[in-house]
Amino acid sequence: MTDPALPTQIRFNRLLLTGAAGNLGQQLRPRLKRWCSTLRLSDRADLGAAADDEELVPADLADAAAVHALLEGVDAVVHMGGVSTEQAWGAILDANIRGLVHLYEAARAHGTRRIVFASSNHVTGFYRQDQVVSPRDPVRPDGLYGLSKAFGENLAQLYWDRFGIETVSLRIGSSFPAPRDRRMLATWLSYDDAERLVAAALTAPVVGHSIVYGMSDNPLTWWDNTPARHIGFRPQDSSEPFRAAIEQRQAPLDRNDPATHHQGGAFVRTGPFFE
Amino acid sequence: MTDPALPTQIRFNRLLLTGAAGNLGQQLRPRLKRWCSTLRLSDRADLGAAADDEELVPADLADAAAVHALLEGVDAVVHMGGVSTEQAWGAILDANIRGLVHLYEAARAHGTRRIVFASSNHVTGFYRQDQVVSPRDPVRPDGLYGLSKAFGENLAQLYWDRFGIETVSLRIGSSFPAPRDRRMLATWLSYDDAERLVAAALTAPVVGHSIVYGMSDNPLTWWDNTPARHIGFRPQDSSEPFRAAIEQRQAPLDRNDPATHHQGGAFVRTGPFFE
Amino acid sequence: MTDPALPTQIRFNRLLLTGAAGNLGQQLRPRLKRWCSTLRLSDRADLGAAADDEELVPADLADAAAVHALLEGVDAVVHMGGVSTEQAWGAILDANIRGLVHLYEAARAHGTRRIVFASSNHVTGFYRQDQVVSPRDPVRPDGLYGLSKAFGENLAQLYWDRFGIETVSLRIGSSFPAPRDRRMLATWLSYDDAERLVAAALTAPVVGHSIVYGMSDNPLTWWDNTPARHIGFRPQDSSEPFRAAIEQRQAPLDRNDPATHHQGGAFVRTGPFFE
Amino acid sequence: MTDPALPTQIRFNRLLLTGAAGNLGQQLRPRLKRWCSTLRLSDRADLGAAADDEELVPADLADAAAVHALLEGVDAVVHMGGVSTEQAWGAILDANIRGLVHLYEAARAHGTRRIVFASSNHVTGFYRQDQVVSPRDPVRPDGLYGLSKAFGENLAQLYWDRFGIETVSLRIGSSFPAPRDRRMLATWLSYDDAERLVAAALTAPVVGHSIVYGMSDNPLTWWDNTPARHIGFRPQDSSEPFRAAIEQRQAPLDRNDPATHHQGGAFVRTGPFFE
Amino acid sequence: MTDPALPTQIRFNRLLLTGAAGNLGQQLRPRLKRWCSTLRLSDRADLGAAADDEELVPADLADAAAVHALLEGVDAVVHMGGVSTEQAWGAILDANIRGLVHLYEAARAHGTRRIVFASSNHVTGFYRQDQVVSPRDPVRPDGLYGLSKAFGENLAQLYWDRFGIETVSLRIGSSFPAPRDRRMLATWLSYDDAERLVAAALTAPVVGHSIVYGMSDNPLTWWDNTPARHIGFRPQDSSEPFRAAIEQRQAPLDRNDPATHHQGGAFVRTGPFFE
Amino acid sequence: MTDPALPTQIRFNRLLLTGAAGNLGQQLRPRLKRWCSTLRLSDRADLGAAADDEELVPADLADAAAVHALLEGVDAVVHMGGVSTEQAWGAILDANIRGLVHLYEAARAHGTRRIVFASSNHVTGFYRQDQVVSPRDPVRPDGLYGLSKAFGENLAQLYWDRFGIETVSLRIGSSFPAPRDRRMLATWLSYDDAERLVAAALTAPVVGHSIVYGMSDNPLTWWDNTPARHIGFRPQDSSEPFRAAIEQRQAPLDRNDPATHHQGGAFVRTGPFFE
Repeated sequence: MTDPALPTQIRFNRLLLTGAAGNLGQQLRPRLKRWCSTLRLSDRADLGAAADDEELVPADLADAAAVHALLEGVDAVVHMGGVSTEQAWGAILDANIRGLVHLYEAARAHGTRRIVFASSNHVTGFYRQDQVVSPRDPVRPDGLYGLSKAFGENLAQLYWDRFGIETVSLRIGSSFPAPRDRRMLATWLSYDDAERLVAAALTAPVVGHSIVYGMSDNPLTWWDNTPARHIGFRPQDSSEPFRAAIEQRQAPLDRNDPATHHQGGAFVRTGPFFE
Repeated sequence: MTDPALPTQIRFNRLLLTGAAGNLGQQLRPRLKRWCSTLRLSDRADLGAAADDEELVPADLADAAAVHALLEGVDAVVHMGGVSTEQAWGAILDANIRGLVHLYEAARAHGTRRIVFASSNHVTGFYRQDQVVSPRDPVRPDGLYGLSKAFGENLAQLYWDRFGIETVSLRIGSSFPAPRDRRMLATWLSYDDAERLVAAALTAPVVGHSIVYGMSDNPLTWWDNTPARHIGFRPQDSSEPFRAAIEQRQAPLDRNDPATHHQGGAFVRTGPFFE
Repeated sequence: MTDPALPTQIRFNRLLLTGAAGNLGQQLRPRLKRWCSTLRLSDRADLGAAADDEELVPADLADAAAVHALLEGVDAVVHMGGVSTEQAWGAILDANIRGLVHLYEAARAHGTRRIVFASSNHVTGFYRQDQVVSPRDPVRPDGLYGLSKAFGENLAQLYWDRFGIETVSLRIGSSFPAPRDRRMLATWLSYDDAERLVAAALTAPVVGHSIVYGMSDNPLTWWDNTPARHIGFRPQDSSEPFRAAIEQRQAPLDRNDPATHHQGGAFVRTGPFFE
Repeated sequence: MTDPALPTQIRFNRLLLTGAAGNLGQQLRPRLKRWCSTLRLSDRADLGAAADDEELVPADLADAAAVHALLEGVDAVVHMGGVSTEQAWGAILDANIRGLVHLYEAARAHGTRRIVFASSNHVTGFYRQDQVVSPRDPVRPDGLYGLSKAFGENLAQLYWDRFGIETVSLRIGSSFPAPRDRRMLATWLSYDDAERLVAAALTAPVVGHSIVYGMSDNPLTWWDNTPARHIGFRPQDSSEPFRAAIEQRQAPLDRNDPATHHQGGAFVRTGPFFE
Repeated sequence: MTDPALPTQIRFNRLLLTGAAGNLGQQLRPRLKRWCSTLRLSDRADLGAAADDEELVPADLADAAAVHALLEGVDAVVHMGGVSTEQAWGAILDANIRGLVHLYEAARAHGTRRIVFASSNHVTGFYRQDQVVSPRDPVRPDGLYGLSKAFGENLAQLYWDRFGIETVSLRIGSSFPAPRDRRMLATWLSYDDAERLVAAALTAPVVGHSIVYGMSDNPLTWWDNTPARHIGFRPQDSSEPFRAAIEQRQAPLDRNDPATHHQGGAFVRTGPFFE
Repeated sequence: MTDPALPTQIRFNRLLLTGAAGNLGQQLRPRLKRWCSTLRLSDRADLGAAADDEELVPADLADAAAVHALLEGVDAVVHMGGVSTEQAWGAILDANIRGLVHLYEAARAHGTRRIVFASSNHVTGFYRQDQVVSPRDPVRPDGLYGLSKAFGENLAQLYWDRFGIETVSLRIGSSFPAPRDRRMLATWLSYDDAERLVAAALTAPVVGHSIVYGMSDNPLTWWDNTPARHIGFRPQDSSEPFRAAIEQRQAPLDRNDPATHHQGGAFVRTGPFFE
């Protein structure tokens, strides 16, 4: 499961993985061990049993005191926690805005030096699919979820500028075992490449606040990571082998649907916008 | 008080001015009448008595229902409401994040077509004073207040991309009767120029979501409004006549203070960061 | 009529003005005399009687031999000729494509060194009115007329790169005695400013192939002439005094009409597209 | 001949290939079958016998009625037709300007949705060989042929902006069985890569009007396709294996020849410029 | 002689003006007094008698010890000294390279905080006159003099990055009582505007290392100071009143002379390149 | 030792390699033979015995006459000579400033057409390690050595603009048998890639004055060579295999050391700044 080509070395005494019970969190859980002596895992959902060198610290991001405790003794954070789909505003506000402020305040209080932040491609989801976007272009979120992730990136910038806490914001595409539909032929991030991305973000020597898109080496892409070359992320997988099957399975998209033209896909028209 | 050079014409049936009891709100109150049949005024603070063609509708931005009612029948909004200084996170969250979402949701519900949004130069306050910034450069907020205004600009972009509600985000410098200190020689926005700015933002024929810095025609500035030329804002005042007196009154700034070097001035170190 | 502030000096022995019977051509006819010993005038339409130092040489641009003869002994050209509105493709092809090739070939044959070419803002008419465009941005013509003017600019570039013939392409806005409608508040070019523009283009010492937008000093504009600063065009008129009357006279534009949102105005939907 | 790595799937009911008797057209003819149920072939020259699933429809691009008929029932076009070298102006005008207008008008009339347009590197042939050019840089055609291709790109932009017909303009380098001279070490596009390029342009989900340079993965190149990454073109061949032989065969170029310094090579001085 | 509109205030205890016997130095000598308690003047040439509040400290820039002594007790420097025309390499090397290193080392030793450095437009003299250049574009010196000034700007950048000494590099055009020839219609900097430029550079609150072109408000210019807006330089004079006389006096320039086409004028072909 | 994949062909009659006794010079000495009939070698240090087709011409760069003689009969130069570390100013001035002027003057006198100039990444060493820099960004030297290399690049630009002598300036990273420390994981240039780089710079058909960074295909880098794609440099080695060992051997860097954050590493604080 872990990539043998990745260098293995203990870099952190205690590394915190939030959202460890989520889709990507579950994948990263066994893969992050090589980078730390102790891997602290957190989620609101059930985390199962602790393996060797694992600590389980369940917490709700909306609970400032719990998050404060969660960061104690933590050297670095891989923050996969929070809401990761378009949901009702209240849930997004609690987890991705209030919760993220709790996380950074706790990191500041405890002297944590680096955070790898799971942002999302949906911060720029309202660009068209015939535009190539780089991390320096203005954001165009495609919904409340993307809006909350843009907030998170700006918060990370502030904590770097003001308090010297480093962050790499990962604008993750679509991380699944395989691309699921036509859009993911462009946005797919394999689990192995996700591991490479997180590892690069954790170990790059100097990052300040950097933003990098997370996609595999897919032939067709909308994103240009040139300004993030200092992170050293080199994807090695590709959506290409999945293309024929997907194109056979999924009918061509409706040209009159805005989801067809924008990078955010269905997020540009997903609701319940507000409860 | 109002500028006779400004064209006078009724453009809106009902125009809403929020924050009407605040510093800039009080200035705009009499000046906005020429643009509308009815000027609806709102604030949490006392608004005094209604003049002719004024409606007083007090509301707390954190109260979604009140804000929903506030927007009923409104054609356009000049949103000066909310927190306008560095304060505790809770107050900023309520007014500038939760409250702003209430405002845009209400505008969407009632078919309001344009919002002039009082953003702030503090969304880019962590740039140095020897950098010239344009509305297309990445944001670098200097505190929680600036962070909340960056959120507001992104929200405005989202409501334009998704719902066709137009916004002009005004990154207001320092609007006072006169510049108060050395930094304001660069950032000052006279009240007359503030009126010109708001009028231009209200009446420019097509704005989508546009961002424009709000400063008078001061000789030394950090901001380049070239990408906002389509707004048609032409400041006519200058901080220059105030320079000699300010330089005599205020000692040169401490070179070792980060407030001296950054555009945000003292905001880059102001706090009770969190209560 | 001519601007006394303009420097008066004979620069050219024989200057050719094409389209001399057209709207702008009639304005330029008396104003161009100060720059030349002989002003040669051409048009398909009637040119009236020759004044002192004028030569009348009627010609159809589609007639290669006539155009060849027209350029004989000419030092510089102000090319206002050709089709200047959206028309049937055949007329545009003959005058603005075939005819322009005839003009440049004749200039090459006779050693003419500089051409001031009346291009049009319609080469970029499909940009939105909330975008600020510079001469370096990609063209987006709004119809066949704009397309033919883009062809002309490229032809001018070719004749500079290959044969050393200099051109200034003027992307003229709307040149009339006064702005006629809401759009012209942004695009108006007064006749005096048109004269200043042509004079600058004729006399700037080195131009290669340069492109400059032609508008008066209107408060609201969509165009940024920074890359053409070496032409030295400084407009002195403004559409502002006409604003109140126009806004009273013309109802606000229909938001659902693409002509309202794009720089080209009604050109983006004008027909008969093809006969 | 066809690349087994390319996904094979019927995408179009009827695909039109123009210029099918030309150099690149002959190569594409057997390779395009996999993408369509019926491949309609057209040219002025002899097309030989129709193979299975082929339709032969000879037509002269200058004949509007013939081109109108040619597009009937066509879903997408690969337009390799027209003049592809520097020739007399009349021939270029008929095929590449008048003819291309006929093609787009016919596509509009018949509801064709996408055109892959063979443009040329000669639209930017007057850049120097020590400049790296991207599709967003201003054009600098090196002759009448390049000028006509720039016209074609602008026409494509217009039909996208105005009528929603998508085009990918391919600025093809030099497509031959092998590079023939020193310049083609930079510009060579192998036939297999040409197939990949056309396939990508036909099948990329959203293209609007996009421009992409067509060259193999040659070590030395003058072109940067970053803004066209959304097309998904990934060349796999290289001119490198041919280098030693070419350098032995062809003497070093004359430093005083402008063809040596410019990207367009001999096109910058080729001509019967005009008949 | 001094501009009454400039604010007058003592900013520096001791201000050093080098090159005080030179053309621009003589002009600045009486104008700089208002900014300091003591004005120290230096040159290799005769400085005449000291006026009130003046100190005369002759020094040769090539003499490290003399320059070390010269900077003692100095708060800020206006460095007009050194070679200011194309000369033999030895003279340029001694004054503008070795001498400038002496100056910055001495400033470092004595704690001087800001240097206003007379650079030159000749650091970008090999751009053509139809190009508009900003301080961020790569340098293209037109000779050894321009090369030495580019060295000086880079040295200033180094002392800012490494030692925190601030510099404003002034790329001065042509500062004379009036423009002398056609080229100076673009490059002229009046003495009053030179004073405004130096005053702005001395008093702008934060400059790091900034670069600004020094020209009056001439209608035609090749330089864009937008990135230096934070200096606050606003020229008020213009070459325009001198145009007619110059154009009458000086014949049009030879098109075949490279001096005609490049911004550096005759500097692009001036010699003795090396003795 | 030489790369069999490189094309082998005699391009130059006599090629000069300066600094032939230095670190990289020794590596290049046997590798450059394939490109020339005669390889002239020069250095101040001992060059050993001449091999076949080698000429030994010791010279001190500070000696103008010796350098003049050195260039006689030379077609092209690979200039590895001069000071390549931070040293006392006098040594840098003599070799890298005075010496380089001698070299270019001699090349001009003898008609040498191309120089491959060993510049250094230290011309941009004061950028942070989280910034990605391209050859078009302004220089920020990290010391006197980097400053002298910036001088060299500007000199090369001047000799191209004025005299048509072509140069490729190589901003070499760290060329050693293997990366030695954590910083070199980003900056390492293997000897084989150094050969590829020099070969590309010597043989690219048109270079004018081009700048290219010299690093291997390391995963993490700070440099973007897109504007130098016309050189055709394609590195094939990587620092990745050395990473684990280096990270085990070298403790993590001190966050409070400026050498940790800047691209120049320890050069940003290396002394003796001046003797």
